[in-house]
Amino acid sequence: MKEIRQKGEYSYVYSRYREPIEYVNSGETVAIYTKDAFENRIKSESDLPGETLGKYVNPQTGPIYIKNAEPGDTLQVKVKAIEPTRDHAISALIANFGGLTATEQTRMLHDPLPEKLWFYEIKDNIVEHNERLKFPWRPFLGTIGTSPDLEALSSLVPSNHGGNMDVPDVKPGNTIYLPVLTEGAYFYVGDCHAGQGDGELCGGALEIPAKVTLEFNVIKDKSINWPRIESSEELMVVGSARPMEDAARIAYSELIIWLEELGWDSLEAYQALTQVGELYRG
Amino acid sequence: MKEIRQKGEYSYVYSRYREPIEYVNSGETVAIYTKDAFENRIKSESDLPGETLGKYVNPQTGPIYIKNAEPGDTLQVKVKAIEPTRDHAISALIANFGGLTATEQTRMLHDPLPEKLWFYEIKDNIVEHNERLKFPWRPFLGTIGTSPDLEALSSLVPSNHGGNMDVPDVKPGNTIYLPVLTEGAYFYVGDCHAGQGDGELCGGALEIPAKVTLEFNVIKDKSINWPRIESSEELMVVGSARPMEDAARIAYSELIIWLEELGWDSLEAYQALTQVGELYRG
Amino acid sequence: MKEIRQKGEYSYVYSRYREPIEYVNSGETVAIYTKDAFENRIKSESDLPGETLGKYVNPQTGPIYIKNAEPGDTLQVKVKAIEPTRDHAISALIANFGGLTATEQTRMLHDPLPEKLWFYEIKDNIVEHNERLKFPWRPFLGTIGTSPDLEALSSLVPSNHGGNMDVPDVKPGNTIYLPVLTEGAYFYVGDCHAGQGDGELCGGALEIPAKVTLEFNVIKDKSINWPRIESSEELMVVGSARPMEDAARIAYSELIIWLEELGWDSLEAYQALTQVGELYRG
Amino acid sequence: MKEIRQKGEYSYVYSRYREPIEYVNSGETVAIYTKDAFENRIKSESDLPGETLGKYVNPQTGPIYIKNAEPGDTLQVKVKAIEPTRDHAISALIANFGGLTATEQTRMLHDPLPEKLWFYEIKDNIVEHNERLKFPWRPFLGTIGTSPDLEALSSLVPSNHGGNMDVPDVKPGNTIYLPVLTEGAYFYVGDCHAGQGDGELCGGALEIPAKVTLEFNVIKDKSINWPRIESSEELMVVGSARPMEDAARIAYSELIIWLEELGWDSLEAYQALTQVGELYRG
Repeated sequence: MKEIRQKGEYSYVYSRYREPIEYVNSGETVAIYTKDAFENRIKSESDLPGETLGKYVNPQTGPIYIKNAEPGDTLQVKVKAIEPTRDHAISALIANFGGLTATEQTRMLHDPLPEKLWFYEIKDNIVEHNERLKFPWRPFLGTIGTSPDLEALSSLVPSNHGGNMDVPDVKPGNTIYLPVLTEGAYFYVGDCHAGQGDGELCGGALEIPAKVTLEFNVIKDKSINWPRIESSEELMVVGSARPMEDAARIAYSELIIWLEELGWDSLEAYQALTQVGELYRG
Repeated sequence: MKEIRQKGEYSYVYSRYREPIEYVNSGETVAIYTKDAFENRIKSESDLPGETLGKYVNPQTGPIYIKNAEPGDTLQVKVKAIEPTRDHAISALIANFGGLTATEQTRMLHDPLPEKLWFYEIKDNIVEHNERLKFPWRPFLGTIGTSPDLEALSSLVPSNHGGNMDVPDVKPGNTIYLPVLTEGAYFYVGDCHAGQGDGELCGGALEIPAKVTLEFNVIKDKSINWPRIESSEELMVVGSARPMEDAARIAYSELIIWLEELGWDSLEAYQALTQVGELYRG
Repeated sequence: MKEIRQKGEYSYVYSRYREPIEYVNSGETVAIYTKDAFENRIKSESDLPGETLGKYVNPQTGPIYIKNAEPGDTLQVKVKAIEPTRDHAISALIANFGGLTATEQTRMLHDPLPEKLWFYEIKDNIVEHNERLKFPWRPFLGTIGTSPDLEALSSLVPSNHGGNMDVPDVKPGNTIYLPVLTEGAYFYVGDCHAGQGDGELCGGALEIPAKVTLEFNVIKDKSINWPRIESSEELMVVGSARPMEDAARIAYSELIIWLEELGWDSLEAYQALTQVGELYRG
Repeated sequence: MKEIRQKGEYSYVYSRYREPIEYVNSGETVAIYTKDAFENRIKSESDLPGETLGKYVNPQTGPIYIKNAEPGDTLQVKVKAIEPTRDHAISALIANFGGLTATEQTRMLHDPLPEKLWFYEIKDNIVEHNERLKFPWRPFLGTIGTSPDLEALSSLVPSNHGGNMDVPDVKPGNTIYLPVLTEGAYFYVGDCHAGQGDGELCGGALEIPAKVTLEFNVIKDKSINWPRIESSEELMVVGSARPMEDAARIAYSELIIWLEELGWDSLEAYQALTQVGELYRG
């Protein structure tokens, strides 16, 4: 199995303007090494993010060129395994970043909240900081996607190409479908998590570097609008927009389209999703 | 056990300005009869909502005066049972109402979507319209709450007093906590559902009239800001606001306060909820 | 001319459940006395709001019963004059209130911003705190409206009945149109401002008590959905919703309806408003 | 004076990954030719957008490399003149585009609104389609900006680099300040309008191709966060975000920073903007 490590600088952008670091065939399974969201720069709980990190966060491994992938195709990605390459996960409160603080997007006159780090030991399927902050090992890929056709988008942003979706269902055993928007797909991945609740509330999940095993398949002449996820029991669509009402509208609209592909009538699909659809914020 | 039926007209408002229909003691268990969201007016699948319904939807049974409840107290409501009083549930597409249509709040120039009704038979713990639209019996209370102190709020609106929250966890076995905002609490309930997905997407769940068995207890000198729900495994807070980002902020902020009451530090609670908090839209 | 002063407690709610303080005929001009948003309780710049104010802010004078006003009519209100009844205006930073701070609606973990008061002398058409904070006298009514039909809404809330719109065009010389939603209209007014920018950014305009001269006329059998304002040069509609995108959609949709009443085609009105419509946040 | 015309294909992206079409000195005044938002493809009122346009709209002329501009500098752009290069302006209703329709971002189940075109003659400072749709000539630049540092952003998107702001104050006589985010600034411009109301309601302003005269100056070692505009009487900041509440917060926060640069205290600036700040949606 081919092992892929970043060549040169990590990418902080989903971009077809960068040189591919590797070429992969449809049908191939590869192992990809990713750094954590802090590019592995935080070494101890006293390394405050504001002093330790560079200009960007969320480094990506890529772009990986998927042979024979062309606009209008779909890239199927089966998540085979996520193995941590460090014995601990790190979560952080970063200034002006997170759900219950003023941010660059939601500006206020308050002083920033204090920065803070939590280290968690990973052992025996448990991720543990102390007796209270002790969680099961539930690894997933925070950031995964193809590249937009014209744009190059920050690895902090989710959109229809995937990107920083932070959806816990991007996990081993599940299959992800991504739109191919440019020749070769220009696939990136990074930001693995040892677990996370809905919404990545404080802005920092249980961040880990990892070895990620993925199987790629190009589905020819089949286009999708937004990322889809298939588990053994569920069909899922990831919609990303602000406000969240619009994200929910995208996800449910695309689920209706998916059900139509499976033979449903659109109003019947709308009705079914009303009664059993589930919605969470990644 | 006392049985409570509406006296006079059903209420379409959570209001302390109406006359109590019944007085209940703290500690008492009562059975309350509710009509469905259409006030039971829809008799067949050809009774289109626009022609059949009156000016308002979502009738409430109440107000029920809870003795000894005073502002600053909390009203604990244990949901003991929900029994349908009709052999079928009804879901509806109503013009300009729902998640994937223009509404009175999100105005557009489109013609309304067509109105449509679905009848579902309730039998053997199955709620069934046809082979595709066939769901398990998962009953809950769509609308429940106390009355605001000064305001009288539409039964279509959720707020800190409860109201039209449409949260599937308001179900038998769970305990709801509501703030007491006015003397006697002026409790209302209605809008039972035989089941619903997250978001009540098309605007109409599986609507049923029901007999609802509730146990009331007044917790003196204990105030809460927003409704709380306790199951055997989870602590939940219902936050309601637009956009949904603000609703999520309220719910997570109040969960942090709840954890602080249980001895947690606020930043540690923020961290824990980041890793294992769950979020859904009622 | 009849002079109307509040009888009993000021109202902090737009409600038809209160007893009218006065009855007014269609065609009548009256003078109404209002207190400032702090119920005139702040006496010096050291009276911090958190210590000085009661549970509510924004007291209203009313309800005033408008004879012969019935649901389906429109209440026309001509603003004839606004005269301050105090020689100074007051602006305040109140904890958790305003545009660049966490609020009860947009919850965060920050400590509140400091509270602060600014007193402004009103003299010679100038409103002056110091050389920098010195503005022209541009009085308007911050809060004006009829009562909802079933609901009673806080005087801090704007909705289709009017209420706390904080629109600087509700000023002498302009005419306001309000929907009549209940028999007698149950009109309230308060919260006069010596001036304000768009958005009432910090949450406190130049707050004044005032004597307000208004002429009321009932327009029979003519219903409107949202408040309208007419100046000598402009037609305006006030839409209130969160997020502001929805407020803008309401206002523009209702302007299109207004232009249709004047003989325009709806798409032509949509086109015209695209090219010359103006939009500001009250 | 140097005249700049697009070399090769027009750009539909603000990107430093494209080859500069021209190099300009600080202090230089140049004339730049832009095409209209439809790349001048619509030739008659029967050329419906869905059939006539390609995959993208809003072509930009650029990138123009500004010599000596480096990250941390500010690019000052004085708008000297906007001259139409066609005798008519065009406005369009495009499917799923605009303020009162479902869009790709705000998805719904409605059929799209009809497409429609309006041609306007430009003559004697009047822009006229018919007696009703007849407006003054008020030209401005809809889209102007530098390039982001890592990202390449669609020319339909506004952000802190500028882009598709659609702000009518980007007009002759006013000065625009843009952050320099990458060496050479990689400046683009396009999407001139013969006029527009607030919000570009239907999605199409009075679109024109134009000859635009701009003077560029690099202000060294002076960084700004968001675009600023200076007229003879006003200081303006353009904030772009969804929802509009966040855009307003950005703009007002940056105005406070601007006033602080001019010697104001932040809370005093907050107070002043509360009383005289103005807010409109571009």
